[in-house]
Amino acid sequence: MLKFSLIGKDNKARSGVFETDHGVVETPAFMPVGTQGTVKAVNQKYLEEIKTQIVLSNTYHLYLRPGTEVLEKAGGLHRFMNWNKPILTDSGGFQVFSLSELRKVKPEGVEFRSHLDGSTHFFTPEKVVGIQRSIGSDVMMVLDECTPYPCEYDYALKSANLTSSWAAMSKEAFEKSFPLYDHKQFIFGIIQGSVYKDLRELSAKDLITLDFDGYAIGGLAVGEPVETMYDIVDFTTSLMPENKPRYLMGVGRPENLLEAIERGIDMFDCVMPTRNGRNAYLFTSNGILSMRNSKYKDDFSFIDGNCNCYTCRNFSKAYLRHLFIAGEILALELASIHNLNFYLSLMRTAREKILDGNFSEWKEEIVKRIINNKINTEE
Amino acid sequence: MLKFSLIGKDNKARSGVFETDHGVVETPAFMPVGTQGTVKAVNQKYLEEIKTQIVLSNTYHLYLRPGTEVLEKAGGLHRFMNWNKPILTDSGGFQVFSLSELRKVKPEGVEFRSHLDGSTHFFTPEKVVGIQRSIGSDVMMVLDECTPYPCEYDYALKSANLTSSWAAMSKEAFEKSFPLYDHKQFIFGIIQGSVYKDLRELSAKDLITLDFDGYAIGGLAVGEPVETMYDIVDFTTSLMPENKPRYLMGVGRPENLLEAIERGIDMFDCVMPTRNGRNAYLFTSNGILSMRNSKYKDDFSFIDGNCNCYTCRNFSKAYLRHLFIAGEILALELASIHNLNFYLSLMRTAREKILDGNFSEWKEEIVKRIINNKINTEE
Repeated sequence: MLKFSLIGKDNKARSGVFETDHGVVETPAFMPVGTQGTVKAVNQKYLEEIKTQIVLSNTYHLYLRPGTEVLEKAGGLHRFMNWNKPILTDSGGFQVFSLSELRKVKPEGVEFRSHLDGSTHFFTPEKVVGIQRSIGSDVMMVLDECTPYPCEYDYALKSANLTSSWAAMSKEAFEKSFPLYDHKQFIFGIIQGSVYKDLRELSAKDLITLDFDGYAIGGLAVGEPVETMYDIVDFTTSLMPENKPRYLMGVGRPENLLEAIERGIDMFDCVMPTRNGRNAYLFTSNGILSMRNSKYKDDFSFIDGNCNCYTCRNFSKAYLRHLFIAGEILALELASIHNLNFYLSLMRTAREKILDGNFSEWKEEIVKRIINNKINTEE
Repeated sequence: MLKFSLIGKDNKARSGVFETDHGVVETPAFMPVGTQGTVKAVNQKYLEEIKTQIVLSNTYHLYLRPGTEVLEKAGGLHRFMNWNKPILTDSGGFQVFSLSELRKVKPEGVEFRSHLDGSTHFFTPEKVVGIQRSIGSDVMMVLDECTPYPCEYDYALKSANLTSSWAAMSKEAFEKSFPLYDHKQFIFGIIQGSVYKDLRELSAKDLITLDFDGYAIGGLAVGEPVETMYDIVDFTTSLMPENKPRYLMGVGRPENLLEAIERGIDMFDCVMPTRNGRNAYLFTSNGILSMRNSKYKDDFSFIDGNCNCYTCRNFSKAYLRHLFIAGEILALELASIHNLNFYLSLMRTAREKILDGNFSEWKEEIVKRIINNKINTEE
């Protein structure tokens, strides 16, 4: 069982730490997304420099490319990508339901066509555990069905039950199988139930009975109003065990993370810092900057005076703008490093504030500043 | 006048060093190309890590974007791109003749349309010196006309005379103007004359009379047979002063560099290491590897066992192949770092071999190995 220790609490907000054979992860934690075994535009040395403690990679993508045979020959994903810190792998459920074509959901799994070449594949809960054994992720996720928004109650019920059934099959497969490499692996369950509290309760109970190493909340940040998301998060965390990590999948903007931490979430992943970075949007302590804006043409100040990342230590807004306007690859790297560092340092400060017992006060201030500066993105 | 010291000679091959206010450049030197104020896909920290002593940037591109006003406000290109080592800027002549549209060549300069937005511009020798004052490059190049291949004798003659006339105007403008920043700038002339030895001689004499800080050979590597290029290089270097750097513009493949060094060349620039890298071609001591080749799918050996770059210290062929096949940005960075390091370390070894007096022997061996391994690219 994963060793997770709570270090401090501030109302519902928690600061903790969990241990893997590849190192510890302090929570609240943000996991940079390395879908295909690389965090887009950021090399492993910079991931370390910005103090990344865990990266997320993706079962669906890695299964299709490079494939489990290559990963096994490499000795697992850690060795393949030369990343010696923890890795969590998403189960591929979300990708099957969002990327692939011609899905057929059956009680025993889901048939789908690859978004790459149209080839047909069948994911069962057991197979997905097996793929994650080949990957060798420190934390595996179970196969689930991620419901869209809006979602009819009846479908959400049926789907939550299917996810529960798959979770049981996953747990059994996990317990019957063994790591392929010389480190321990853990597995998290995923609570579904769309925006229906009774279904979230049903799903949480089913999953908790199965005794996973941690629990995720899936099926949020799929288009529902943000207040609904916060409400479901708040409700669901109240049902989740205190002594295990709580992971809100695919969320989100900096303010979403802070609101979710306040409601008891410990872990996050999102493509936003890297994707927005590649689109020239930079997260800063003064709001979001759109680096293509002509007002930065001759602005030689640093991107964020409060930031100590490689980008901010070395380059001006004017230079970064020039790189974006000129279509230079370096722009993508510099923006992604900065945005990831922003997220990771936000999590570090959140941990401090929780231990200091003034998380909510700090959160209010940050969220207010972010909302006031939203104007920046609209200029 | 630029201080250039010859340290050793081995037949015609030379090893030397020149000094700028931003540091020394040991020759034979390869200059990574940073056309738009960034070496594509490689950040400044990695340029330093691979011991880059000088980068080349481009007057035409920087003039169009970000423009001289921004560069002047930044305090010059060194500050703008945060690169504190030497910079040489190409005059833009080559780009005007290869990239821009609707050129009109006149005795006083060349009118052209920007390849970016079709806007009309006029480059005179004086203006090009002025732009390079705004850029603040340690070494400027004069405006020249780069003849295509093949080129009629009459046109080549007329063009060489125009280049000589522009060179005189450039030198005068250089002497009448002053650096805008707190470092010295130098200026090189460019010898033209296509593949005609008498025209090369004419051009060389005209240029040498003007007493530049160094001399380039332009108008080669534009499609002529490689033996013709070597022959013209050999002929032209025999006309060039011993006590000044000799720069063969836009060349080339590793074997081209070595053959040109043997014929007395000191400096090179070429997009090949970075462009080929972005296209998945890796230069190694065992020939060129095409990293998309399926044979590397499960080849977990390093890209080049003799290389100590970031890429080779950390990643396997299989991982790099995966990144290329998956279309990941990291592939571009890793391949470019490796290829640049290959070129720079080839120059370091060339310098050693010249001082040891066994350059030609070593060159033969390297060229033989490269040619034998050309097969690799065709697999």
